[in-house]
Amino acid sequence: MSNLIEQLQWRYAAKKMDPSKPVASEKVERILEAIRLTATSSGLQPYEVIVVTNDSLREQIVPHAWNQAQITDGSHLLVFAAWNDYTEERINTMFDLVNDERGFVNEGWENYRKMLLATYPMRDAEVNYQHAARQAYIGLGTALIAAAEEGVDSTPMEGFDPEKVDEILGLKERGLRSVILLPLGYRAEEGDWLKDLKKVRRPKEQFITEMK
Amino acid sequence: MSNLIEQLQWRYAAKKMDPSKPVASEKVERILEAIRLTATSSGLQPYEVIVVTNDSLREQIVPHAWNQAQITDGSHLLVFAAWNDYTEERINTMFDLVNDERGFVNEGWENYRKMLLATYPMRDAEVNYQHAARQAYIGLGTALIAAAEEGVDSTPMEGFDPEKVDEILGLKERGLRSVILLPLGYRAEEGDWLKDLKKVRRPKEQFITEMK
Repeated sequence: MSNLIEQLQWRYAAKKMDPSKPVASEKVERILEAIRLTATSSGLQPYEVIVVTNDSLREQIVPHAWNQAQITDGSHLLVFAAWNDYTEERINTMFDLVNDERGFVNEGWENYRKMLLATYPMRDAEVNYQHAARQAYIGLGTALIAAAEEGVDSTPMEGFDPEKVDEILGLKERGLRSVILLPLGYRAEEGDWLKDLKKVRRPKEQFITEMK
Repeated sequence: MSNLIEQLQWRYAAKKMDPSKPVASEKVERILEAIRLTATSSGLQPYEVIVVTNDSLREQIVPHAWNQAQITDGSHLLVFAAWNDYTEERINTMFDLVNDERGFVNEGWENYRKMLLATYPMRDAEVNYQHAARQAYIGLGTALIAAAEEGVDSTPMEGFDPEKVDEILGLKERGLRSVILLPLGYRAEEGDWLKDLKKVRRPKEQFITEMK
C-alpha cells in the first residue's frame, strides 16, 4: 500500500497473530529505520527500541501483559523504552553528535544546548521521564504506519507491568523504562474477534474544530 | 513522495515558513483525516484537533510560544488538545458510537467498557490528562508523515504556554488542554538556518537493541 490513508484504514490492533508467519527481517529493518528517523523534542531521541525475538524472554513477559498472546504469536516484539531522566551527559552526547555530523559548531545551537542543560537535568526525574515517554509515542505513531506500509500487523499495548518488563529485559540498569509494547506479525485467519469489524472513529465534526 | 523513509528524510522542523504560500485545503483535509484514523488507547480518541487559520488568534498565540513566526507565517495552525480527564460520559459516548456503527453489542467489548468505567473516571484528572496527551503524540507522529506525503512542511512545537493558548482558543470551557502546536506551511527559501543542514540521528546501534 502506498497511500497513507489506505494504510491507516487497513491497520488495526490485531488480536490474534499467526505464529506460523514470521515477519521478514528486511521489513523489520525498515520499520525500525522509520522510527529512528522520525522527530523527537529537540532531536534528543530520548528513548530506545528493544527488539525481542528471544522466545524465553517473550514468554516471561506474557503473564505481566494480561496474557496477550500476540507477544509470542508475533515474530518480533518491539519495546519502546524511554530514558528515565534527562541527564547532562545524555544531552551533551546528542549535541556533540550533531556537531560532529554537521562538521561545525552553530552558535544558536550551542545556546540552545545551554538552555536545555540549565533546565532539564534539574527537573524531577519523573517529569523528564514523562516527557521522554511522550516522544516514544511519536515513534509509535510512525511504527504503525511503517508496519502497514509493509503489510505487517502490529498491536500497540499499554496494558502491562512496566517494572516487570524492565526487570526481564534488564532495562533499569540501562536507565530505561518500558513505555509501550508492539508485537509485529500477521493477523490470523481465525480467532481474531476484531479482524472483520468496522473501524470506528468519531466523525470529523466531533474531532476537528476550525477557527477561521 | 510515496515512500515513508523518503518522506521522513525530507521532513524537518521548518524554522522559517514562506507566508506567501498557503497550503491547499485538500491537503490539510487529508492530513487531518490521517490523524483521525490513527490509533489511540482503547480507541477513545481522547483529544481533538483545532485548526486555526484566523490571523488574530494566531497573532495572539505567538508571544506565548517564544515568538515562533511559523505560527503566523504558515497558513494553518493545528493545535492538538487533549481531554482534561476521562469521564464516564466520554467513555460511554465512544463505546456507544462503536456499537451504533457496528450494529451490534459485543459482550467482550461491553466487559471492556465496564473495566474502563471502573478504573479511569476515579483516577486523578492529571493522570488521565497525561495519558490522553500521550495519545495526541501518536497523532503528531501521524501528522508529520501525512504532511510530508503532501510535500507540506510542519513544525512541532512544545515550547508554549498551554494555559494562555487554552485561554485564547477557549479550550478550558470545552474540557481540553493544548498539548502540541503544529503549524503547516512551506519552508522559506531564505532565512531558515536548519533547512540545509544534515538530519542527525543516533546510529542504529545506539538506538536499537536486539535480544535474540
